Amino acid sequence: MEKIDIPKRTVYRLSLYQRCLQQLKEEGVDTVSSEDLASAAGVKPTQLRKDLGYVGQVGTRGLGYGVGTLSGAISGIMGTSSVLQPVVLIGVGNLGAALLRYSGFRKEGFEIIAAFDADPCHVKSTTEEMGVPVHHVDGLGDYVKQHGVKMAIIAVPGSAGQSVADVLVEAGVSALLNFSPAVLSVPDDRVVNQVDLAAELRSLAFFAS
Amino acid sequence: MEKIDIPKRTVYRLSLYQRCLQQLKEEGVDTVSSEDLASAAGVKPTQLRKDLGYVGQVGTRGLGYGVGTLSGAISGIMGTSSVLQPVVLIGVGNLGAALLRYSGFRKEGFEIIAAFDADPCHVKSTTEEMGVPVHHVDGLGDYVKQHGVKMAIIAVPGSAGQSVADVLVEAGVSALLNFSPAVLSVPDDRVVNQVDLAAELRSLAFFAS
Repeated sequence: MEKIDIPKRTVYRLSLYQRCLQQLKEEGVDTVSSEDLASAAGVKPTQLRKDLGYVGQVGTRGLGYGVGTLSGAISGIMGTSSVLQPVVLIGVGNLGAALLRYSGFRKEGFEIIAAFDADPCHVKSTTEEMGVPVHHVDGLGDYVKQHGVKMAIIAVPGSAGQSVADVLVEAGVSALLNFSPAVLSVPDDRVVNQVDLAAELRSLAFFAS
Repeated sequence: MEKIDIPKRTVYRLSLYQRCLQQLKEEGVDTVSSEDLASAAGVKPTQLRKDLGYVGQVGTRGLGYGVGTLSGAISGIMGTSSVLQPVVLIGVGNLGAALLRYSGFRKEGFEIIAAFDADPCHVKSTTEEMGVPVHHVDGLGDYVKQHGVKMAIIAVPGSAGQSVADVLVEAGVSALLNFSPAVLSVPDDRVVNQVDLAAELRSLAFFAS
């Protein structure tokens, strides 16, 4: 499990570099300088070089990185899979329902195989509407264990975030994408990425006014 | 325009503190220590104290911060408004459509007053479906100028991100929430917050596998 030793933000940036490299491949570009790749990914060249140290790629002075070689090296670390990664989504309110309807997850290799909600009204209407089974949240832990689910998307109100995370962690989920405003505590061997849309908007409003 | 001098990430964290303070107010709590407030917001106490320096609040040793006083001071800096802030959304694909259906923006004080797309098929179906007018992207600049819009949400493919941002900047938009994978270049007096869902998911998948 050597990969666990790569810092969380480095893994995030490696996925940015990988996307830029795929773009370059499609454009028929063979080599790229660290400056150009860093610029395309929105990071500093020193950061890029440090990150690429984790994948054992240092580039060649004056020549830069081979696009195919570097892309392959990152894939080797990050893993590539032709199988859709199963994901559960908890909280089928406005945001959760919007995320269920968003087909971009599948395109990126993720399949929401089930959703969970505490409100039976949501459960019924959305099961019919969305093509994804929506269960009562009481069954979350058992479902996750039975299906060996390792990733979850949390879209519940902030007050319910931690208790949902606790159930997921206990059931073996190792990676959480948290859209709730709650700051989640999880054991050190689990990872949480938080996307706080309300905070993003409010901070932008400050600059817009 | 003194507020422009507050760093972008500080503004973001102030909005987190504000949410925590509102929660405390609802719970009837009068004072809070910097440690407790920092923990609730998911930041280090030293970071919190530094950030609160920008709003002129230093707290009282042994007593902490007055919840109402601090909340009022942050509101004074961040601004509060009973008027919904008008926002345009560009790109009514899967993600853009999901965001249009998400009612959480309105709850946070933002109203998507119009959407724009380059594809007339999207334009037609979504205008009827969503209750928000969806225009052809050719009219974006004029619309923004006419309505004095200062905030925009970008949900176009990465290849179109920068050109859309250029139109918005030229038309006077000062704050962009960018869901496209493109890294956007804007003048120094404009602000971009990026939410890259695909990169969040891919980096989580690394830890889940």
